[in-house]
Amino acid sequence: MPLSVPTLPEGIDPAWLPPDAFRPLGERRTSIRGSGPFVETVHGEVAEACEQFGGEVVRGAGTGTSHDLVLCQGDDDLGDEGFTYERADGTTTVTASGRRGLLYGLFHVVRLGEKAFRGACPREAHRPAVALRMLDHWDNVAVHPVMGQVERGYAGGSLFWRDGRSRGEWQRVRAYGRLLAACGINAVSVNNVNVHETEAHLLTDRIGEVAGIAGVLRPYGIRTHLSVTFAAPVVLGGLPTADPLDEAVRAWWAEAAARVYAAIPDFGGFVVKADSEGQPGPFTYGRSHADGANMLAAALAPHGGTVHWRAFVYDHHQDWRDRTTDRARAAYDHFAPLDGEFADNAVLQVKHGPMDFQVREPVSPVLGAMPRTRLAVEVQATQEYTGQQRHVCWLGPMWSEVLRFRPEGEGGVAVGESARGGLVAVSNVGDDPFWTGHPLAQANLYTFGRLAWQPVADPHRILDEWIALSFPSAPQRLATGLRTLLHGSWRTYEKYTAPLGVGFMVQPGHHYGPSVDGYEYSPWGTYHFADRDGVGVDRSAATGTGYAAQYAKPWAEVYESPATCPDELLLFFHHVPYGHVLHSGKTVIQHIYDTHFEGVAEAEEARRVWAGLAGLVDPARHARGAERYEEQLRSAREWRDQINSYFFRKSGVPDERGRLIH
Amino acid sequence: MPLSVPTLPEGIDPAWLPPDAFRPLGERRTSIRGSGPFVETVHGEVAEACEQFGGEVVRGAGTGTSHDLVLCQGDDDLGDEGFTYERADGTTTVTASGRRGLLYGLFHVVRLGEKAFRGACPREAHRPAVALRMLDHWDNVAVHPVMGQVERGYAGGSLFWRDGRSRGEWQRVRAYGRLLAACGINAVSVNNVNVHETEAHLLTDRIGEVAGIAGVLRPYGIRTHLSVTFAAPVVLGGLPTADPLDEAVRAWWAEAAARVYAAIPDFGGFVVKADSEGQPGPFTYGRSHADGANMLAAALAPHGGTVHWRAFVYDHHQDWRDRTTDRARAAYDHFAPLDGEFADNAVLQVKHGPMDFQVREPVSPVLGAMPRTRLAVEVQATQEYTGQQRHVCWLGPMWSEVLRFRPEGEGGVAVGESARGGLVAVSNVGDDPFWTGHPLAQANLYTFGRLAWQPVADPHRILDEWIALSFPSAPQRLATGLRTLLHGSWRTYEKYTAPLGVGFMVQPGHHYGPSVDGYEYSPWGTYHFADRDGVGVDRSAATGTGYAAQYAKPWAEVYESPATCPDELLLFFHHVPYGHVLHSGKTVIQHIYDTHFEGVAEAEEARRVWAGLAGLVDPARHARGAERYEEQLRSAREWRDQINSYFFRKSGVPDERGRLIH
Repeated sequence: MPLSVPTLPEGIDPAWLPPDAFRPLGERRTSIRGSGPFVETVHGEVAEACEQFGGEVVRGAGTGTSHDLVLCQGDDDLGDEGFTYERADGTTTVTASGRRGLLYGLFHVVRLGEKAFRGACPREAHRPAVALRMLDHWDNVAVHPVMGQVERGYAGGSLFWRDGRSRGEWQRVRAYGRLLAACGINAVSVNNVNVHETEAHLLTDRIGEVAGIAGVLRPYGIRTHLSVTFAAPVVLGGLPTADPLDEAVRAWWAEAAARVYAAIPDFGGFVVKADSEGQPGPFTYGRSHADGANMLAAALAPHGGTVHWRAFVYDHHQDWRDRTTDRARAAYDHFAPLDGEFADNAVLQVKHGPMDFQVREPVSPVLGAMPRTRLAVEVQATQEYTGQQRHVCWLGPMWSEVLRFRPEGEGGVAVGESARGGLVAVSNVGDDPFWTGHPLAQANLYTFGRLAWQPVADPHRILDEWIALSFPSAPQRLATGLRTLLHGSWRTYEKYTAPLGVGFMVQPGHHYGPSVDGYEYSPWGTYHFADRDGVGVDRSAATGTGYAAQYAKPWAEVYESPATCPDELLLFFHHVPYGHVLHSGKTVIQHIYDTHFEGVAEAEEARRVWAGLAGLVDPARHARGAERYEEQLRSAREWRDQINSYFFRKSGVPDERGRLIH
Repeated sequence: MPLSVPTLPEGIDPAWLPPDAFRPLGERRTSIRGSGPFVETVHGEVAEACEQFGGEVVRGAGTGTSHDLVLCQGDDDLGDEGFTYERADGTTTVTASGRRGLLYGLFHVVRLGEKAFRGACPREAHRPAVALRMLDHWDNVAVHPVMGQVERGYAGGSLFWRDGRSRGEWQRVRAYGRLLAACGINAVSVNNVNVHETEAHLLTDRIGEVAGIAGVLRPYGIRTHLSVTFAAPVVLGGLPTADPLDEAVRAWWAEAAARVYAAIPDFGGFVVKADSEGQPGPFTYGRSHADGANMLAAALAPHGGTVHWRAFVYDHHQDWRDRTTDRARAAYDHFAPLDGEFADNAVLQVKHGPMDFQVREPVSPVLGAMPRTRLAVEVQATQEYTGQQRHVCWLGPMWSEVLRFRPEGEGGVAVGESARGGLVAVSNVGDDPFWTGHPLAQANLYTFGRLAWQPVADPHRILDEWIALSFPSAPQRLATGLRTLLHGSWRTYEKYTAPLGVGFMVQPGHHYGPSVDGYEYSPWGTYHFADRDGVGVDRSAATGTGYAAQYAKPWAEVYESPATCPDELLLFFHHVPYGHVLHSGKTVIQHIYDTHFEGVAEAEEARRVWAGLAGLVDPARHARGAERYEEQLRSAREWRDQINSYFFRKSGVPDERGRLIH
């Protein structure tokens, strides 16, 4: 029986699946051939579209009439999710190779719109470059006294949890799963990696609540994962230890995993943040992180599950006086020596940069240093450090740079294509009517999903895809306007915040807005070392912390010297005088002034452009955006003025162009 | 019937009233003559002492035997609280002039100890210089999500409230009242000046809980006051306005006051924080603060109550870019023009300095500018900015400087003696076993009470009094040690924190520990303007904000020029180059380095001295102090290193003595 399409609750934005996006499909005659649960999902989608737009759908070959579209299951060797696409003789044919391929094939047709039904197209094979395309929700079950319902969430409450319990708002969760499937995401972790007391119980006595979510997401090809605490055998099992080599501990986890799979047969696996920022881990027992991860992998292996073990391990009680310790080195120092020691179903999940989702970081050297380990690359869709969904900051170009980065230089493999453990984003979604707070932040979620499917895709093409889907009958002026607003928004944000890769300079704790010295004398290891003469962190091998040498050639050499280091990363790798001349020809200090004035001017222009789109965008959506652009501009000016004043006070160098610095 | 002495709950420190302090009295024969409730309190005290130490007490003249001590009520013209003291022919006589004098006379005898019963002493008259000697508790009834049970409290929970209700732990409250009476305090405000939703109801439907506290404090001569919200007629009374000139509003307050007095006949009055940091006030209705205060005064007047109206009004949404606005000016600018407009029973309660209880501030110019207004001086016993009772910082010398300050110069009247509205301290007490967190912080509370009785007293003499009372059989080494630890502790704290009167440089929000730029670009109006050339705030009339001109001569002239401004206030009044030479002969930058190294050395020495007193102090008390000295030292080093690094990075001037600056 076809699965009905979820009903979007009143007032909830349809995001990139508005009804009109289904018009080309819904006006046609479609034949669906095959069986299995995902075929029922596809059938339901097509039936709903035909219902709305007058087309028809039949199951099987039908009675001799020709079809505009045939969706069928075949047996190509394209894996569980692949499909072929072709158009000939007036019929478009999508053939799935595995169980879930038809789902992705259907959404491919939706994305193509009218183009799917015109002319001819030779057979194309589609399959994801990366098998696991995952969203990690940092959602708390119980509201955390500091972090709230969603840690680093800027889009309201959680879709899954409220005030300590499962919300059970299944239509909304189904609609969410559908949006994810439409952009290619196939896995969701449903709770925060910081696993607090209430959340720990999801693994055991509250697994039923997880199973509820899993059941709703399943028809859209999404497997459910769970963040667990390494201390579970102690805090839940009453054992005296959580030592990963202890037999009783191993047995406890094996049993726990078996019970999880009894409740959720296609359960994806565990996500673990261990020995990090106060979370427990194997270091307590003198064991390695491979020991820890492999123990959980062993528990999951009989059931086909995977453990995602986060590499975000560093000393967050660092002494700022100690310049030899470098947080950027930590993941490599901890994990690179363990290459080859992780089990096949243990994935090491590595943040894309060595620090923490700053607006600009180099690519983590870990991603080129562990060829015998399944690595996952973690990016952050939730805009913790990039404007918290009050600022427009489309991260597609940044993620694309990371995924295309070749750790071994030209001729090597791109990070995005060697991520055998998958691509993971921290979700930016909440129960907000627009899903993501700022309506334009939806583009980040969509772009992540599509890049995860094809990491070397042009992000700007993906953005155009998102615009076409989300605003299906958009006049050219709207599409151009949206492109203008989003294309350069990441670079605009970079311009008015921390300069030249130096990072942070944010308000401690909540991480919104500027505080140049906010983390400068803190234990978090996030320094800029600005003095009256210069600024930046010397991470060279010759005179600095040695971080640059964690890269293979050519990057180790490129980053080692200010002469070859790219401008945008200069202060990440080097401490230079304010008068240092960049490749751009500007001095560092003048670059700081110029970019900060430019960044605000660009934010002003963006506000103007958005205002000009007023008649072309749904009024509620436009009002939300307009309100956020006001805040973005206020905040951008604050950034500009604090950064410029700070460096003017320190350097004493006046702006060449004599602009107002307070 | 004599009132029994409160039983101190198990484990609670007796502070400055240990049983042994009553030995000299308790071994003697005492006659008590007179009647009334306070006589019963006194009788109970003496009876309890005699019970313990073998003396005897009779009511009336007794049967011809001579007495060592006669406590009687007379009719001298020394007011309600005054008494005379004399010793002749082997008998010490205390004669109270009013109802409460005998209470203070008794504690005078206790303080004198054996000296009260030796030799002869001609008649002395004692009376407080200031009629109202008050503690303001910033205690919340309901736990505040950010500020907790006690706002800016560092001694555990509240003595009065817990989790939304009156605690009803009356023995502890009685013991507290007794301690307060013994140092001369006669008024307590029982809730936070920031009046939140729950607390607002104390005025009306929850007045019974306040009456409970008042009943327990009353026998020790303490009147109870209540902080109220200016918006009460709206939030409690359902009126559409809280306009102080609206007749319905005035009637509402009159009725509210009448109901309060029905429950608490000797109720002291209201404390109000209005139009400050988000609290409502008369500005909303275009009325003056005199209008607001006088309305409440009118409601209280028929019952003999007083309104304490706080002068802490300033713009806490200031733009740091705007150098013309000066928070230090705010209280004077708002209130000085209103001199003469306040009702007789309206007291304007003025913080001792123009900012906010920093370790060093000039005396508020308001205190010399409103001769026709009853002013109260407010100090802060709770150590918000002075180490939060983790650091030892005895504030006696600072308060004494304030109270002895003569706004009109030599020959003028001292602030402490012209405070017709009283002296007020924000309480540093909680339900901690030592009352004040750090056991040595008890000295601040005691010193405040005694200075409030006699503002020009030598604080060091008061400190010796506190030591003698609290450690009645202390060997000389202990007394000397305690004196060493406390005497210079304020100056030590000043040395390792913000230099030369510049203030703040604390972590925003909680105000503990250093953050030099923590408030530098904030809306709170608390700046230091440090750049590569110099530091400080130009508050001169000639080139600065004009704040210096708010003083009368000679101070306006003294503060106007760096040449005459006292070193310790230099950066409060002037922005000077790092090479500016102080009266001490040192440059500003070298002064910063030297004092920060010295301050830490002094903290190290203090820790050593305390360790050396281990055998002489109760072990629990000593352990608490030792633990706090560890933290003080850690924190002092952090202050030293952050301040020195910050100014070295900015100025580039090396330490003359080549010490380690990070």
